[in-house]
Amino acid sequence: MNEFGADFESVLAELKKASSKDYHFADGRILGSMCTKPIDIAIKAHAMFLEANLGNPGLYPGTVEIENELIFWISKLLHGDGASGFTVGGGTEANITALWIAKKVSGGTEVIFPKSAHHSLQKAADILGLKAIEVGLTDNLQLELSEVESKLSKNTAAVVAMAGTTEFGVIDPIEELGELCSDTILHVDAAFGGFVIPFLKDLGHTLPSFDFEIANVDFISTDPHKMGMATIPAGVLLIRDAKHLKKIAVSSPYLTDPRQASLAGTRCSAGAVSAWAAMKFLGREGYRNIVKDCMDTTEYMARRVREIGLDIAMEPIMNIVCINMKAPEKVQFELGKLNWKVSLTREPKCLRIVVMPHVTRKVVDEFMPDLEKVCKGLKEI
Amino acid sequence: MNEFGADFESVLAELKKASSKDYHFADGRILGSMCTKPIDIAIKAHAMFLEANLGNPGLYPGTVEIENELIFWISKLLHGDGASGFTVGGGTEANITALWIAKKVSGGTEVIFPKSAHHSLQKAADILGLKAIEVGLTDNLQLELSEVESKLSKNTAAVVAMAGTTEFGVIDPIEELGELCSDTILHVDAAFGGFVIPFLKDLGHTLPSFDFEIANVDFISTDPHKMGMATIPAGVLLIRDAKHLKKIAVSSPYLTDPRQASLAGTRCSAGAVSAWAAMKFLGREGYRNIVKDCMDTTEYMARRVREIGLDIAMEPIMNIVCINMKAPEKVQFELGKLNWKVSLTREPKCLRIVVMPHVTRKVVDEFMPDLEKVCKGLKEI
Repeated sequence: MNEFGADFESVLAELKKASSKDYHFADGRILGSMCTKPIDIAIKAHAMFLEANLGNPGLYPGTVEIENELIFWISKLLHGDGASGFTVGGGTEANITALWIAKKVSGGTEVIFPKSAHHSLQKAADILGLKAIEVGLTDNLQLELSEVESKLSKNTAAVVAMAGTTEFGVIDPIEELGELCSDTILHVDAAFGGFVIPFLKDLGHTLPSFDFEIANVDFISTDPHKMGMATIPAGVLLIRDAKHLKKIAVSSPYLTDPRQASLAGTRCSAGAVSAWAAMKFLGREGYRNIVKDCMDTTEYMARRVREIGLDIAMEPIMNIVCINMKAPEKVQFELGKLNWKVSLTREPKCLRIVVMPHVTRKVVDEFMPDLEKVCKGLKEI
Repeated sequence: MNEFGADFESVLAELKKASSKDYHFADGRILGSMCTKPIDIAIKAHAMFLEANLGNPGLYPGTVEIENELIFWISKLLHGDGASGFTVGGGTEANITALWIAKKVSGGTEVIFPKSAHHSLQKAADILGLKAIEVGLTDNLQLELSEVESKLSKNTAAVVAMAGTTEFGVIDPIEELGELCSDTILHVDAAFGGFVIPFLKDLGHTLPSFDFEIANVDFISTDPHKMGMATIPAGVLLIRDAKHLKKIAVSSPYLTDPRQASLAGTRCSAGAVSAWAAMKFLGREGYRNIVKDCMDTTEYMARRVREIGLDIAMEPIMNIVCINMKAPEKVQFELGKLNWKVSLTREPKCLRIVVMPHVTRKVVDEFMPDLEKVCKGLKEI
């Protein structure tokens, strides 16, 4: 920082320069992110509620009403009418908070989750001082139920299931897990799937139950800033039994509420309002159409990938295409030189494309020749 | 959520209705918040970087450059040229992260902080499974050094000091603490003071050292979304020794960076960019002028408070006025009916006014007659 400031226009010019170095969803080159360009009403809502801070709710009764309605809607979407919950900064904060509550409620010292879990579960276990017990996967990349069964004990604070997995979009066998977890807290990480699976079911896809429909599911996290078309930061943690939430409340004397039950203090609330606006504007039909478009493009991409002689790791369940590769990191690097930003999976090793709404059929048509060229050069084809 | 969506204009109308129920800084009725209306360039910058996600830095090289420069500037402001660090959602996340690192680095199981610490320290201890050891305060509301000395042990993960305290704006004796903490991690919570104390010193106020100037200070947290004039969420955690940061890194395979060393996963970065824009636009002189205005108004308010026969708890060190009351919660309630949002302190029990930039002399002039009337009615005067 200089002694003297700069004028508005020159700061703006520097901001524009910095922004021009970033990738933007609208350019259609980001193929490996689970975020996308928020819809216009979400952006507008965000800008209107920039000051709001749900960490100090007495000042923001209008924002509180919006958050409550958002929680009500998402609970209902996930078959949990009347569930409790609140908005958070994203899936990681939701998972840490879920395991924090689980630790307080259960007194347990261990958490069981699949090898396919989002890396935030490792992080959460480390922060909370819980022993992380990773269970293996079946051939179709679902968590291995028998391993969970053998590892459940009086020390278990929680079991975590994915709906779906970050890498492949696989839905764990949560109904069966629920039967195992009659005395154990079961948390479902639906960061991505929460705004996909319900609409895929509407579209006639045969998919298993994953949400509060299953009696023993206790908590669900889902991120409106992924497939919910909202702005960052918009995550949600839902808790079936409100009394569990009270376990993490601490005294907050100088704020408008005497107790605060959230990981964050000051809570950026613009993302939460944007999520409300997106849901209000789109309705269930709007999301269904978005998910349909994404799945159509996903299937189109899978077909094109096969046509050039590559294999996909599995038939896409959600809008993620994972392409088998011997050395996907090399392909990723070469595609990067052509300004394509793709991502990777660990096991099996694949090139991973998340077919978000900004990844249109036109984008796929532009991408495929480059993918083919790079893969031929690297002898992947 | 309905089956069908609503049109843009009707969603907008509902958003406006909700916003009208909230308090807004510009109306000058929020007297108890440590946030304020961000400056225009900060709001503009926020809107331009709504998509950016520093949790996936390979997609946002322009935003990464901005974050790096922001960290460089704030480190320099706090006498820590070359310190490491990153932006976070706010002071609570910064404090949890600081103690998480301290726990990993030290292997300790206890954290020592003053009774005057922000409630996020209790929260952090609870999340991390650290035993919270609260130390008492001297008559001038600073942490009691002798108590820290007697409680330091091989189990201590960290000592936390306030610069200044959330309630009274008191700066703990950090230089002396530094001498006690030659083998212990010392974290300074300067969420509020980081953007106040350096400028008060510029203005000739005699204030003690509190930052990296003190050799044994290891971490500092400060919030640009408080007196930094930035948008929420903009917090910063600075770490003198970069190797400490690596202790919390976890593998993040499907992102653009293979390891992630932060509590959050997806990181709303619009607030960070807004902080950069505010610092660039204001320069040191700009902040000095803002702090000068706030302190002038603080002194004006203190004088007016005394003129109506009330006492203040202490001569204001920063821009906070704490008014002694027998029953401040009753006064707060009555003022609330007149649409004034004030806050409280615990010990001593006071009515607390944070004289943020939106609390102008004109606001004080409007507030004082109402304060006098309410206090007379409740026999506080």
